[in-house]
Amino acid sequence: MKYIREYKEGDRVLDIYLCKHKQQAVTRNGKPYENIILQDKTGTMDAKVWDPNSAGIEEFSALDYIEVHGEVTSFQGALQVNAKRIRRCHSGEYTPENYVPVSSHDADAMYKELLSFVNSVQNQYLHQLLEEIFVNDAEFAKAFSQSSAAKSVHHGFVGGLLEHTLSVAKLCSHYCTAYGKLNKDLLITAALCHDIGKTKELSLFPENDYTDAGQLLGHIIIGTEMVGRTISRINGFPAVLEGELKHCILSHHGELEYGSPKKPALIEAAALYFADNTDAKLQMFTELLDNSDNSDWLGYQKWFETNVRRTIV
Amino acid sequence: MKYIREYKEGDRVLDIYLCKHKQQAVTRNGKPYENIILQDKTGTMDAKVWDPNSAGIEEFSALDYIEVHGEVTSFQGALQVNAKRIRRCHSGEYTPENYVPVSSHDADAMYKELLSFVNSVQNQYLHQLLEEIFVNDAEFAKAFSQSSAAKSVHHGFVGGLLEHTLSVAKLCSHYCTAYGKLNKDLLITAALCHDIGKTKELSLFPENDYTDAGQLLGHIIIGTEMVGRTISRINGFPAVLEGELKHCILSHHGELEYGSPKKPALIEAAALYFADNTDAKLQMFTELLDNSDNSDWLGYQKWFETNVRRTIV
Amino acid sequence: MKYIREYKEGDRVLDIYLCKHKQQAVTRNGKPYENIILQDKTGTMDAKVWDPNSAGIEEFSALDYIEVHGEVTSFQGALQVNAKRIRRCHSGEYTPENYVPVSSHDADAMYKELLSFVNSVQNQYLHQLLEEIFVNDAEFAKAFSQSSAAKSVHHGFVGGLLEHTLSVAKLCSHYCTAYGKLNKDLLITAALCHDIGKTKELSLFPENDYTDAGQLLGHIIIGTEMVGRTISRINGFPAVLEGELKHCILSHHGELEYGSPKKPALIEAAALYFADNTDAKLQMFTELLDNSDNSDWLGYQKWFETNVRRTIV
Amino acid sequence: MKYIREYKEGDRVLDIYLCKHKQQAVTRNGKPYENIILQDKTGTMDAKVWDPNSAGIEEFSALDYIEVHGEVTSFQGALQVNAKRIRRCHSGEYTPENYVPVSSHDADAMYKELLSFVNSVQNQYLHQLLEEIFVNDAEFAKAFSQSSAAKSVHHGFVGGLLEHTLSVAKLCSHYCTAYGKLNKDLLITAALCHDIGKTKELSLFPENDYTDAGQLLGHIIIGTEMVGRTISRINGFPAVLEGELKHCILSHHGELEYGSPKKPALIEAAALYFADNTDAKLQMFTELLDNSDNSDWLGYQKWFETNVRRTIV
Amino acid sequence: MKYIREYKEGDRVLDIYLCKHKQQAVTRNGKPYENIILQDKTGTMDAKVWDPNSAGIEEFSALDYIEVHGEVTSFQGALQVNAKRIRRCHSGEYTPENYVPVSSHDADAMYKELLSFVNSVQNQYLHQLLEEIFVNDAEFAKAFSQSSAAKSVHHGFVGGLLEHTLSVAKLCSHYCTAYGKLNKDLLITAALCHDIGKTKELSLFPENDYTDAGQLLGHIIIGTEMVGRTISRINGFPAVLEGELKHCILSHHGELEYGSPKKPALIEAAALYFADNTDAKLQMFTELLDNSDNSDWLGYQKWFETNVRRTIV
Amino acid sequence: MKYIREYKEGDRVLDIYLCKHKQQAVTRNGKPYENIILQDKTGTMDAKVWDPNSAGIEEFSALDYIEVHGEVTSFQGALQVNAKRIRRCHSGEYTPENYVPVSSHDADAMYKELLSFVNSVQNQYLHQLLEEIFVNDAEFAKAFSQSSAAKSVHHGFVGGLLEHTLSVAKLCSHYCTAYGKLNKDLLITAALCHDIGKTKELSLFPENDYTDAGQLLGHIIIGTEMVGRTISRINGFPAVLEGELKHCILSHHGELEYGSPKKPALIEAAALYFADNTDAKLQMFTELLDNSDNSDWLGYQKWFETNVRRTIV
Repeated sequence: MKYIREYKEGDRVLDIYLCKHKQQAVTRNGKPYENIILQDKTGTMDAKVWDPNSAGIEEFSALDYIEVHGEVTSFQGALQVNAKRIRRCHSGEYTPENYVPVSSHDADAMYKELLSFVNSVQNQYLHQLLEEIFVNDAEFAKAFSQSSAAKSVHHGFVGGLLEHTLSVAKLCSHYCTAYGKLNKDLLITAALCHDIGKTKELSLFPENDYTDAGQLLGHIIIGTEMVGRTISRINGFPAVLEGELKHCILSHHGELEYGSPKKPALIEAAALYFADNTDAKLQMFTELLDNSDNSDWLGYQKWFETNVRRTIV
Repeated sequence: MKYIREYKEGDRVLDIYLCKHKQQAVTRNGKPYENIILQDKTGTMDAKVWDPNSAGIEEFSALDYIEVHGEVTSFQGALQVNAKRIRRCHSGEYTPENYVPVSSHDADAMYKELLSFVNSVQNQYLHQLLEEIFVNDAEFAKAFSQSSAAKSVHHGFVGGLLEHTLSVAKLCSHYCTAYGKLNKDLLITAALCHDIGKTKELSLFPENDYTDAGQLLGHIIIGTEMVGRTISRINGFPAVLEGELKHCILSHHGELEYGSPKKPALIEAAALYFADNTDAKLQMFTELLDNSDNSDWLGYQKWFETNVRRTIV
Repeated sequence: MKYIREYKEGDRVLDIYLCKHKQQAVTRNGKPYENIILQDKTGTMDAKVWDPNSAGIEEFSALDYIEVHGEVTSFQGALQVNAKRIRRCHSGEYTPENYVPVSSHDADAMYKELLSFVNSVQNQYLHQLLEEIFVNDAEFAKAFSQSSAAKSVHHGFVGGLLEHTLSVAKLCSHYCTAYGKLNKDLLITAALCHDIGKTKELSLFPENDYTDAGQLLGHIIIGTEMVGRTISRINGFPAVLEGELKHCILSHHGELEYGSPKKPALIEAAALYFADNTDAKLQMFTELLDNSDNSDWLGYQKWFETNVRRTIV
Repeated sequence: MKYIREYKEGDRVLDIYLCKHKQQAVTRNGKPYENIILQDKTGTMDAKVWDPNSAGIEEFSALDYIEVHGEVTSFQGALQVNAKRIRRCHSGEYTPENYVPVSSHDADAMYKELLSFVNSVQNQYLHQLLEEIFVNDAEFAKAFSQSSAAKSVHHGFVGGLLEHTLSVAKLCSHYCTAYGKLNKDLLITAALCHDIGKTKELSLFPENDYTDAGQLLGHIIIGTEMVGRTISRINGFPAVLEGELKHCILSHHGELEYGSPKKPALIEAAALYFADNTDAKLQMFTELLDNSDNSDWLGYQKWFETNVRRTIV
Repeated sequence: MKYIREYKEGDRVLDIYLCKHKQQAVTRNGKPYENIILQDKTGTMDAKVWDPNSAGIEEFSALDYIEVHGEVTSFQGALQVNAKRIRRCHSGEYTPENYVPVSSHDADAMYKELLSFVNSVQNQYLHQLLEEIFVNDAEFAKAFSQSSAAKSVHHGFVGGLLEHTLSVAKLCSHYCTAYGKLNKDLLITAALCHDIGKTKELSLFPENDYTDAGQLLGHIIIGTEMVGRTISRINGFPAVLEGELKHCILSHHGELEYGSPKKPALIEAAALYFADNTDAKLQMFTELLDNSDNSDWLGYQKWFETNVRRTIV
Repeated sequence: MKYIREYKEGDRVLDIYLCKHKQQAVTRNGKPYENIILQDKTGTMDAKVWDPNSAGIEEFSALDYIEVHGEVTSFQGALQVNAKRIRRCHSGEYTPENYVPVSSHDADAMYKELLSFVNSVQNQYLHQLLEEIFVNDAEFAKAFSQSSAAKSVHHGFVGGLLEHTLSVAKLCSHYCTAYGKLNKDLLITAALCHDIGKTKELSLFPENDYTDAGQLLGHIIIGTEMVGRTISRINGFPAVLEGELKHCILSHHGELEYGSPKKPALIEAAALYFADNTDAKLQMFTELLDNSDNSDWLGYQKWFETNVRRTIV
């Protein structure tokens, strides 16, 4: 298949894409047309159906897979498909993995690495908690592997949550070699669990949008509750340990204004916050560099509160 | 008994008080003495034991009830007891209610009024939830009736949590008559439950201090979890309704920087925030006026970010 | 007449509307046309005059009432009138009340209710002040009844100022039953007067825009001066009372950054601020719910600093 | 007389000073004594009366002038008078001017300079306004000449308001030579009037403290009202000009959080804000340098948000 | 030549302009065209080349000088040139000074005035430093005379840096007459040097855009380094004086969040900050008034955080 | 020798300590005495010389080493030495290393590890720069090894700057394994140089206080200048590389309000900021835990903006 990132102005289009979005519109002189957005794992591209009632345009909806005939034009600096014919496809005609952005790392290998972190935890209660969550609950494990870590900002792809969780755990593991006060079992457990609420804050791909609960409660609270519910099924889990672990999850955004209801009050909570923030921001910077053209200066970035530049040296 | 608020400089002391605090110290020329704080329901007063090893001074600890012989002096503008003899009392010699600040309203009458709010809720799931919490759980009901609403800022007395909860519910009830969009069942339920986490955030009187869980998690999260756990025992409780109720509790501080992990996104959540804030601040102002001398200007108040004045008109 | 809110795509238009706005423009190929905005009490609708020099288009200006012949199309999701003929109307052909948004409550009934608040005030000086403003000054009373409480945010309709003032007075009256420290005469007087400056900050409908004085001074200062000038005509009005009343008006926005030059330093000033803020925000939420389509999530709202959702339960 | 700034440790005291403050206290072993603060125009000095009931200590109150016999000791780095005898003086024994801080500039000369600014204003209405305030109202002129510009921060001495007003007018006059858009009549008038409210915000020396109206309303509002009341007595004063002048006064603190209810929206308002701020801050820096010992680094200064240093070069 | 500010809708164009910007685009129906921006010293104007491949359109690039034939239309309220023929010009056909905005003051006269400030400095080290920078370095002097003081906000024209520097020096000179603590030599030297880094932060006209170093380091750091490097060539320059001068330059933005790494800690540093801020803001206000139409209210201005109005009086 | 941390109330003192601070004072009844602070590498202890003019008390000054005879008392919860005899010691009598806090890591070993980082840099210009600074400049190397990283907050001991620099370099090295976009040579060079300005911002132990240049310019600017000056001696050092390296140093505090004049605009600058912040904060937390008693809750910590707790699990 020809991926969206490969098209140039003037190319002909004849391939299957996911219709991410579809909206009716009317031209200035009253003629109806349709704006649609095509998506595959390499990106998205606008398309116009100027003659939606013609014979060649089948009925279809957002999130359908459609075969598009047309050609690529350029409008105000962006490519745009002029769609002449559209056919709605049935499952079997396409490989879903090609239509959503996916981590460049192998999901199974990453999950195996995550399990080795689980196995490194020696405190019996924390170990049992991790087993319950990451080993015994197959449905959760599957959702966790397929989730993104965000709607768009960073790690916004299938496997992104797993990739981010691993990076954070590795940073935390490095911290433990340098700062002797850190309780490694607590910190690794907190690192592995800190974003599990995201499996319920965001719907799975191809939608990958905030759920109702995600907007009303947020992944910090959802994740804390998931941990609390699992702990309530473990005999003898110490209350103080439960409080410390939940505190790490609650405070991992570091600042009240970023949605943590408590600031980090334990050294492990502080460490988790630094690891989460470091990985999120360096990954955002990486994705920005990957997705920009070759200019040196890449414009103002809201999250960095500055214009940002590619390193030249 | 003679209450602490009644003493004047020069009075003799011979009565039983709660020893709220006790600390060893040494005078400039090396002589040991003790700083203690006496408490009854009308307030606190510093005392000094200049000769802690004399025969008349029995052994005692903080939170003991002690009979104090001495006289009232004044040091740097504040009254201070010079304690000559101290005897530790045993239960039966004193009436505990006299030693902690207590709401001026009758606890039973307030609880009855609260139950009439419970009974006014018609949605079956919300009604069942309130029954589980406020009617069927006698231990919680007792703790709820005896808790304060804060360590010091406002409603810092036995029954304060109940009194504040009722005030908020009444304000919300008034709002419902004025703003037709408000869902009364949801708002009243949220008002009754918004601070139930305080029963675990603060220990009971006479200690009335933050618990470990209180500091690590806070009453907003604790209360949300209590509601979540109770709901999990109610068959068929709608998930959307659970999300809305929890959202109201989570967001009732109104701003992220005040510890709410979400800003109010529902009109009932906004209303609850206004009611909670209005009652807390007007009660703080009331307690300030009650506890100040007769000056017009009462000094800078951190919570109001201004000097504050008694109304003269 | 057919109201603007009733139109659907494809409808024919033949009725009289207020021309709220009119601007010349040129198409990409150099042809002049006109953008106009039609208004009635149910809302506004864009219209285009593609052939402004044709015989059927009479001369007209913004704020004229015009009879429009045309048809309704849809452009980028919004309705738009394609105006073929336009005739300027003379007074008598239309009922002005139909062209501006109006409170859903009866103005006379509301004013009567306001006067009962005036009569409830027993302090002779405050009572006389309210009589001077709301009873003896017929011109002011008329302006007060017809003003909106804001250009757009909330209560932005004829009678909005009266409706908001009444709501605030009722909230304050409720507070007086709950908080014994409040001086009811002072608080009710302050509630009734707190926004009288808006009669000079905003011009009347159909314009309803900021006046020069409104922008340079603002309704808080204008209102304080109006109260000061009226008091100067009342013999023996106590200076301290004047200071307290003015302070309540000056500080009713609660925070310096919202334009109050003083923070509330009296309990009545604090109460007025809570009432004003509560009514403004809950009314904004109500108008948002009224004016949105049936989606659950209603998008980011600047004033609430969050995405907002319709309650589902 | 020997001025307070001249005393050294070990000096004997025998002179008349103003008793600025007086408070009863009790030593650790129960003996009453008195803390008093002596003041003359060069500063203040703590004093202790260790034996207030002895024959040599007459009755006296705060703001009395008293003759003090004693000697100068040093306590924790500051000088302190050990007062052995105190006699209350009657008017005639002392020259009040010696006991309050006074501008180093001659009041009459400064007022004359201010009047030449008044005379430079050519707009008839503004000129008449300034005449009414600064020439025709002798009582105001006297108060204006004797007021300080602040309780303590800067220009906190008799004549300080006059000195600050002149400095601001001179800066504004300089601005007019450089920025042609400035309307000199408006700017000079605003400069002369910007702080007239301070005559009512602060009581006169020796008290020099906030009045009740000062705290409830503030000098910005009081001054705006004074200007408004004077204008109402001038026939034909243009309403637009009144709005512009009041706006300059209202906005001269530059930021809402500094108590201006409006930000500067006219170029003259902006200029006045810069002149007021520049003079206030450079005068504060000057007084800090004058009142510090010879250290290079003068410690953290809240108003400058930094440690501050004497220039060495 | 006919200047851009003189054109009206319908005028014919036949003159040479600087092409500031050029971008390819495609119409909705796939036809390529070009957006260009024409500039002369009176402003800029959009132009469209609807037929870029026609014989009359020569090849040209951004920053070329081009002769344009066409006519002026109006699109969405702004003038726009419909370019029919374009010819690229060679140097000699046009006078570059006509194509960039230039200070209304004579550059040589301004530089002479600046040198008289240099000569007024009596401290031998500071005087030698200023000689090295402004007299002995001809290349720098030329760049300094031709630089703007900003990309757009204020003094954004050839000679703007010189004009701003002079204004600041004059304000500082005035301060020295009023505030006796100011060291005039230090303050004038700092005023003359405070923005010399701008010669390397911004490229020269016609580009006048941030350089790479400008974005990475900023003019404050660049200027401090320039001063440091020059001082290192002056024998015996006192280290303390170097520190004080650099501190003035570093702190002249007054606040850390405006890019000064230190807050003003010397009275000269504070004075320089006030002078820089006053001149920048009053010049911005002046340029705004110059460049606006005759409306009273000129809309919201980000830098003043308010709507701004032309003074009417 | 007996270390300060080992003393208990009642112990006799007879050993040599550093006199960190000395101040004259007068008792309430006029008797002169002296407050001094004794220091060794384990901490500080207050001492009083009640009879400074007695024969047994030799003359001495702050920063002298003195032999103290006396006994340990306790005043308001803190130990205090009552000094009876004091003798000023001459060098040779004491080992200076015992009197200042020292890193628990060996300085030579750490410097060797730092040099291995220097050797790992392959870019010839960056490598030469590091050689110039850390290898060829013996005086700098010595100062760098003996400096603290701060006056008090974290790493406030001899070798602290070296220890912190190494920690930051190790964190950066770990980042390079995880984030492929990072240029390791640039990041390691920036890590090694980021705080070299601290050798001039703080004086060496035992004083360890801000220098004049430290307060006026700060270590960020001083360090940038040091790098700039060294680069100017390296032939052919690329200007772009110089800008990038300086930018990393300038922006390593991450936020303008923390004294960085630029926000990180390069991914290496962002990474350096995360490493610096992570190490500083986790080290502060570590030192807090080390220096606190065994309580769980350790009180409010300004830098963490929260109460902080020891992990119990």
